[in-house]
Amino acid sequence: MSKLTHLGDDGAARMVDVGGKPATARRAVASGRITMSAQALEAIRAGNAPKGDVLGTARIAGIMAAKRTGDLIPLCHPLGLEAVNIEFAYEADGIRATATASLTGRTGVEMEAMTAVSIALLTIYDMAKAIDKGMVISQVRLIAKSGGKSGDWKADA
Amino acid sequence: MSKLTHLGDDGAARMVDVGGKPATARRAVASGRITMSAQALEAIRAGNAPKGDVLGTARIAGIMAAKRTGDLIPLCHPLGLEAVNIEFAYEADGIRATATASLTGRTGVEMEAMTAVSIALLTIYDMAKAIDKGMVISQVRLIAKSGGKSGDWKADA
Amino acid sequence: MSKLTHLGDDGAARMVDVGGKPATARRAVASGRITMSAQALEAIRAGNAPKGDVLGTARIAGIMAAKRTGDLIPLCHPLGLEAVNIEFAYEADGIRATATASLTGRTGVEMEAMTAVSIALLTIYDMAKAIDKGMVISQVRLIAKSGGKSGDWKADA
Amino acid sequence: MSKLTHLGDDGAARMVDVGGKPATARRAVASGRITMSAQALEAIRAGNAPKGDVLGTARIAGIMAAKRTGDLIPLCHPLGLEAVNIEFAYEADGIRATATASLTGRTGVEMEAMTAVSIALLTIYDMAKAIDKGMVISQVRLIAKSGGKSGDWKADA
Amino acid sequence: MSKLTHLGDDGAARMVDVGGKPATARRAVASGRITMSAQALEAIRAGNAPKGDVLGTARIAGIMAAKRTGDLIPLCHPLGLEAVNIEFAYEADGIRATATASLTGRTGVEMEAMTAVSIALLTIYDMAKAIDKGMVISQVRLIAKSGGKSGDWKADA
Amino acid sequence: MSKLTHLGDDGAARMVDVGGKPATARRAVASGRITMSAQALEAIRAGNAPKGDVLGTARIAGIMAAKRTGDLIPLCHPLGLEAVNIEFAYEADGIRATATASLTGRTGVEMEAMTAVSIALLTIYDMAKAIDKGMVISQVRLIAKSGGKSGDWKADA
Repeated sequence: MSKLTHLGDDGAARMVDVGGKPATARRAVASGRITMSAQALEAIRAGNAPKGDVLGTARIAGIMAAKRTGDLIPLCHPLGLEAVNIEFAYEADGIRATATASLTGRTGVEMEAMTAVSIALLTIYDMAKAIDKGMVISQVRLIAKSGGKSGDWKADA
Repeated sequence: MSKLTHLGDDGAARMVDVGGKPATARRAVASGRITMSAQALEAIRAGNAPKGDVLGTARIAGIMAAKRTGDLIPLCHPLGLEAVNIEFAYEADGIRATATASLTGRTGVEMEAMTAVSIALLTIYDMAKAIDKGMVISQVRLIAKSGGKSGDWKADA
Repeated sequence: MSKLTHLGDDGAARMVDVGGKPATARRAVASGRITMSAQALEAIRAGNAPKGDVLGTARIAGIMAAKRTGDLIPLCHPLGLEAVNIEFAYEADGIRATATASLTGRTGVEMEAMTAVSIALLTIYDMAKAIDKGMVISQVRLIAKSGGKSGDWKADA
Repeated sequence: MSKLTHLGDDGAARMVDVGGKPATARRAVASGRITMSAQALEAIRAGNAPKGDVLGTARIAGIMAAKRTGDLIPLCHPLGLEAVNIEFAYEADGIRATATASLTGRTGVEMEAMTAVSIALLTIYDMAKAIDKGMVISQVRLIAKSGGKSGDWKADA
Repeated sequence: MSKLTHLGDDGAARMVDVGGKPATARRAVASGRITMSAQALEAIRAGNAPKGDVLGTARIAGIMAAKRTGDLIPLCHPLGLEAVNIEFAYEADGIRATATASLTGRTGVEMEAMTAVSIALLTIYDMAKAIDKGMVISQVRLIAKSGGKSGDWKADA
Repeated sequence: MSKLTHLGDDGAARMVDVGGKPATARRAVASGRITMSAQALEAIRAGNAPKGDVLGTARIAGIMAAKRTGDLIPLCHPLGLEAVNIEFAYEADGIRATATASLTGRTGVEMEAMTAVSIALLTIYDMAKAIDKGMVISQVRLIAKSGGKSGDWKADA
């Protein structure tokens, strides 16, 4: 396909009609990372040790944002998400966030997973920016999706 | 500073008290990019030519999200943004978004600029994902900030 | 019917129970217009020519508001809209907006179409009010609906 | 003025920077009406008599929407409204709503008053549409504004 | 069951996956009360007599909050509520609110009923706090639920 | 005072005009508790030990709700909260939540503190209800406020 499905024949933005699609089980996984100074990473690890609050807060922010995806992304359909979770992994120079969203519905949940990752990473930025304003969010991408007419898809390794 | 300002002495998350800070002019610039296939980039350019709808929609999404930053990022203060704008630039393999936010207030607008960029790029992803699911969002970072006690700051080039 | 379905037997406001209704295909079309000075209309046309931003922005505002109808109108049910689009037409002394919303569900989407039109027109007002504060929004009405127990309905011409 | 202040030099939508404006007392009054069948009007009057719920509900909807104007109208500034109220008047063939909003701030509250009126009227439509789907919202306009650099303004009678 | 279903095996918060559950009819009733001075209670009764605005406003607030439960409670699923209503009863030293919510869906509506009661009572507090700041909200609890795998449940009398 | 300030002379609900009030430092503390079975309390403590997620999630929910108070309570003014934090204390048969909110502004933050406590307790209910549906929220009240024309206030011990 090489046409933008969100634009009508006249080029105007529109919400694609998904009414005719069957409701099937759909699932999407997205991931992204934030790189930071050793000092910021250490502070998050240490702050995280006793109470888990930095990553715990980022996780809640990501989950809540996933539920509001249709309210943030103009042409996304409002969806009744059935599950979403977010995992974090410490890497040498930062933190990786991976979100999984699922739904039995007429359209996919790629944007919900992508939004969850983005807001979780922005929350980490917010909570550590007093230490390191130079943190960079990168590699925010879809990892895999399943369900729907276009079928399964996996990102290149 | 090497302590996370969002965590209280007991490690619990909290909103930092900005009540004692003076209201000064603050400004922040953030930037990020989305890389994509030549086919997707061409479709956005073409779809964009007559009606401007892809980037126009992404711009509106980013501006609206900037206004809701305090609603998305758990420990951000709700702010009365005085201005926000978003510019896009075509690059060889994608599109760059740059957002500028400003405010006369007691706390900075870094998160507003970062959120505007992130949601604008997610909107581009959403509108072109039928063509290219492998698009990647990267280099989301603060470029510069001014105002406030911590003074001016610029990212390394 | 001559009773207000949103009021209980005691006259108290309530959300009507739609649980017993079957989920059927529903569609609603609403329309409205904004009249303005020749100068304002010309500015929108001109501003619109190269970038489409006035009507493009109004369209996005209307679509996003349609998705939030249940959040704005107290006794409306929250719905998973399947499609919504908005068209604009220039008239001699203003602009007409027409919105179409659809859903497979237990209740109609009249309010979603009406809300989309209203917010789209308010957005045009906002964007042109520096030129003409005297613009007037009128003829906001339901044009047609289909689906549901009450069946098809069309406004008198 | 004959340029659209919401469009940058390149025609792109933007939030106008109000940072340099002084914070002054501002006030706006907007009005609009909904016409309906005698049967619908009578039902609202009767339902209204003992409990006030139709107009009471519409009033609350309008007030709440006024507070969310910056969240609905893309280029509106988020404002800390200091007061808003809505009055209704029965007319021969319908109901008139008049909203007054005020604020000490850097930008006007015209859109808040216009939004309050629009959502209040849409709520009346919603609550009476089971009786009369042909109701029409009209004459939604700014009646007067005061404060700010552009000074006082009144609609032509 | 003695494990917290909202925590993953690693103790991290998550939204429980309800995708495998069948969509069944669910209903929940919650209740709570606010106690206040005789003076405050009398003012509400009197203010309530002609226009019904205190309890009418609290009812609308509770209904609107019920629709937004998934937006307020981090791990609640977003639901398409099919009905919600709130009843108030005057008691000797205060007011009791009882909310009923229902849905045909994959998960229960207990939180929607609990949220409706809480926000309705907070609204009463807000509207009468100029008379009595010492009002106390208490006995907010689930009264009964039906539907779903865990079946019917009733609070002890 | 024995009149409801939220009702106009005609008994209609309105947002009280705070425009003439000076902006002063304001602070409010509210508290409430949730009682539960020993089994539920133990599960929260245990789940809480390693990761802090139950109370950590409830804290974030309360903080985010405090920021949205003006969006939930119909006649509350939208405020730019400068600080809010929530503390939890284990008691013999449950958990106590105490929230403190502050602001330099024209109106008090009592409702923000009350809302933070209520939503935090509802979140605890949500996360433990699979173990104990009979949990009860009680003693939700204002503890103290300072600032503003009505001056300092403390609840009776």
